[in-house]
Amino acid sequence: MAEDILGRCRAIVGDAHVITDEATMAPFMADWRGRYSGRGLAVVLPSDTAQVAAIVAACAAARVPIVPQGGRTGLVMGSVPDTSGAAIVLSLRRLNRIRAIDPLNRTMTVEAGCILADVQAAAGEAGMLYPLSLAAEGSCTIGGNLSTNAGGTAVLRYGNTRELCLGLEVVNAQGEVWDGLRGLRKDNTGYALRELFIGAEGTLGVITAAVLKLYPAPRAALTALVALDSPRQAVELLGLLQARCGAALTGFELMSAFCLDLVAAQFPDLPRPFADRHPQYALVELSSNESDAHAHGLLESSIGEALEAGVARDAVVATSNKQALDLWRLREHIPLAQAAAGKNIKHDISLAVSRIPGFIARADAALQQAFPGCQPVTFGHLGDGNLHYNVAPPAGESHEAFLGHQAAVNRIVHDLVADCGGSISAEHGIGMLKREELARYKSPVELGMMRAIKAALDPLGIMNPGKIL
Amino acid sequence: MAEDILGRCRAIVGDAHVITDEATMAPFMADWRGRYSGRGLAVVLPSDTAQVAAIVAACAAARVPIVPQGGRTGLVMGSVPDTSGAAIVLSLRRLNRIRAIDPLNRTMTVEAGCILADVQAAAGEAGMLYPLSLAAEGSCTIGGNLSTNAGGTAVLRYGNTRELCLGLEVVNAQGEVWDGLRGLRKDNTGYALRELFIGAEGTLGVITAAVLKLYPAPRAALTALVALDSPRQAVELLGLLQARCGAALTGFELMSAFCLDLVAAQFPDLPRPFADRHPQYALVELSSNESDAHAHGLLESSIGEALEAGVARDAVVATSNKQALDLWRLREHIPLAQAAAGKNIKHDISLAVSRIPGFIARADAALQQAFPGCQPVTFGHLGDGNLHYNVAPPAGESHEAFLGHQAAVNRIVHDLVADCGGSISAEHGIGMLKREELARYKSPVELGMMRAIKAALDPLGIMNPGKIL
Repeated sequence: MAEDILGRCRAIVGDAHVITDEATMAPFMADWRGRYSGRGLAVVLPSDTAQVAAIVAACAAARVPIVPQGGRTGLVMGSVPDTSGAAIVLSLRRLNRIRAIDPLNRTMTVEAGCILADVQAAAGEAGMLYPLSLAAEGSCTIGGNLSTNAGGTAVLRYGNTRELCLGLEVVNAQGEVWDGLRGLRKDNTGYALRELFIGAEGTLGVITAAVLKLYPAPRAALTALVALDSPRQAVELLGLLQARCGAALTGFELMSAFCLDLVAAQFPDLPRPFADRHPQYALVELSSNESDAHAHGLLESSIGEALEAGVARDAVVATSNKQALDLWRLREHIPLAQAAAGKNIKHDISLAVSRIPGFIARADAALQQAFPGCQPVTFGHLGDGNLHYNVAPPAGESHEAFLGHQAAVNRIVHDLVADCGGSISAEHGIGMLKREELARYKSPVELGMMRAIKAALDPLGIMNPGKIL
Repeated sequence: MAEDILGRCRAIVGDAHVITDEATMAPFMADWRGRYSGRGLAVVLPSDTAQVAAIVAACAAARVPIVPQGGRTGLVMGSVPDTSGAAIVLSLRRLNRIRAIDPLNRTMTVEAGCILADVQAAAGEAGMLYPLSLAAEGSCTIGGNLSTNAGGTAVLRYGNTRELCLGLEVVNAQGEVWDGLRGLRKDNTGYALRELFIGAEGTLGVITAAVLKLYPAPRAALTALVALDSPRQAVELLGLLQARCGAALTGFELMSAFCLDLVAAQFPDLPRPFADRHPQYALVELSSNESDAHAHGLLESSIGEALEAGVARDAVVATSNKQALDLWRLREHIPLAQAAAGKNIKHDISLAVSRIPGFIARADAALQQAFPGCQPVTFGHLGDGNLHYNVAPPAGESHEAFLGHQAAVNRIVHDLVADCGGSISAEHGIGMLKREELARYKSPVELGMMRAIKAALDPLGIMNPGKIL
């Protein structure tokens, strides 16, 4: 039986593109964070959509599960198989062509296996911007971005991956090709299939290509670091800057003092922009399609207004690209500093922006009560209401031992998120990691509709089983 | 049987809110354009979500079809029943509360029966903007806007209704309430149910409330009318303005010379901004969160650049609110001028922006060949690739007689749209009017997935039967 399907796969993609030896398969089976490895029957690497369709049809006929895989940088174990060894891993990495760029429509048609950084570069060469930007951009693929509706640092202005996609090509669970590669900004002709496949983590079908939205590249981008009293003040500053700058405000990241302490301890060569330690910091990015002078004038007058209105303590505006990169480096080094200091307990939550200050206060208090001295590492995309509310052990205590409290910490944080009407997965998805949490926090009505859709589109249950539901 | 369900409905909403006499029911049965009237068992007007749920559950138990209805301003016969008389019309107009405004999160929670203009006004009173804007805004409801994913004149900057919604409350076809009223900008926890109900035209469930995105109200908005050689030049001007102005470009409408001739003939009191007649015109709107001076400077320098680069012939910039309104009036009076001149054959199509000039040339030529002397009335939201490509009879010929060619004209236009990869319904939806066209132009794979979803979420087929599919 296993040999039958492997033979069919070899006939479709060629012997060289069906990997079955354990050592070569190993990296395709391993979770990005190294917490987990699954097992698979084979790794199959088709080169085009027709081959993907043929593989899926063969698997459907043989009832063999399929785990679609992109750059495998996901954080919720969504693109690796379970340990049964029954599934084939379908790697899309050979579908990596940029099929077309349409400058007048501001769109680009790309295959699922294109690396995000390559897509950004191709847009740049055409004088435009593909705004999706996230830490894994050098390895993650467009298919994975779409399947997880990836977020990142440009969501405030440009939206999640969902908002950056105008059309999809999908191989459904029956092995049929749906050509939905429309570069249309308006199209009200029936159900939102595109939206359904986006964020479905490969459980409804395999995204093979997409039409992406491009934007005019801004002529100027400026970065500032603003020192703040509190999360509440950060929310007020965000409101002031949005009112004053509109869409020119393209980034707004929150970082607590403890985050920058961590960075300073682990990366002492990075600059420390303020002489004093402040409770919170906002990293602010402003972009202009007009000119550098326009961006400067707007940022300086807005921050001046904020200081005057008492919604900021202090601010530094980067006066060179190097300074701007250094400020962004502070933000980007938080996860690295965490990792260097030892593992901690991570969350990827979202809330209404207005509820962030209250949530942080309540979560900090509840955790202190349960785990006195524990250290919240609070940072994230405040403009989107998205916090990476991570928790480190009390100073001097063992990180490994603290990880033993993960379930209890998750329960405190996620119960509070649910109580505040928030989401337990803002931008990372569900995968295998948060499947039980999803079942706990979603209403039976919502779970019921999700199961009905899964059964309707994948009645054999072969698409990425064990993920989400 | 009919009496049973009416009794149940009366018990749920009260006698006064179940209408069964023909005369009072008549307006609820009639298509907005007056082309059609359906028949129904009753019109039922619940006052809250619990009543909607109880009505749907009762109808599901009795297998009685339900036609959800908002402001009944749709253009595709999507919210009126068929002629069987079997269905109840479920009017949402009594669910018209604004439940909450959250200024820091920039969201508003409203019930489905809220009139769009009332929502715009409530946002304005709170110092913010709900940007959805369309001709029917004084009558249409938020539930209808969401169910048809309405477009309008602000899509270029703010997106369709889909992009303006962060959460839904829905009564599903089983009469269960799904509380998806999340005001979250990021939430990757399972399938995109919100997106699926948006644009489903009430065929999967009944939207009862929504969380809407608000924006900072711009401090200044300026309007200009630009005279152009051709649709090609319009597309080039759009590109130049987008590159130069970014998100400050909030409107870009195309109007052919014939459109303004029609308006001038029917409404001679409206101003004529240019002494000369030009082949095409673009109505351009620029908004600024900064100041009037900023908007002026940006618009004037951008249009100056366009004139210098030869992508515009001439331009007038409104120097007062009255002048700006007058320019917009030219655009808004096109449908009225058409109606006054006699009925014509309408289309609501979209294309990649880059394909618009070629499409117009080919469609004009094909129609001239089939119907010599016929007069295309070409206008629309060029920034979104959305044309209302309407066709009037040859000068002096009977409008009524020309309507007899509707099917043949539709075929020429829609075949060309399909050939150009476009959509036969950009912003109006499918309803009953375009159901056969949808079946003709959609692929069997896409139709199959749509039917599977319909069967999964509405297995009894009671939700707005005969619409879309």
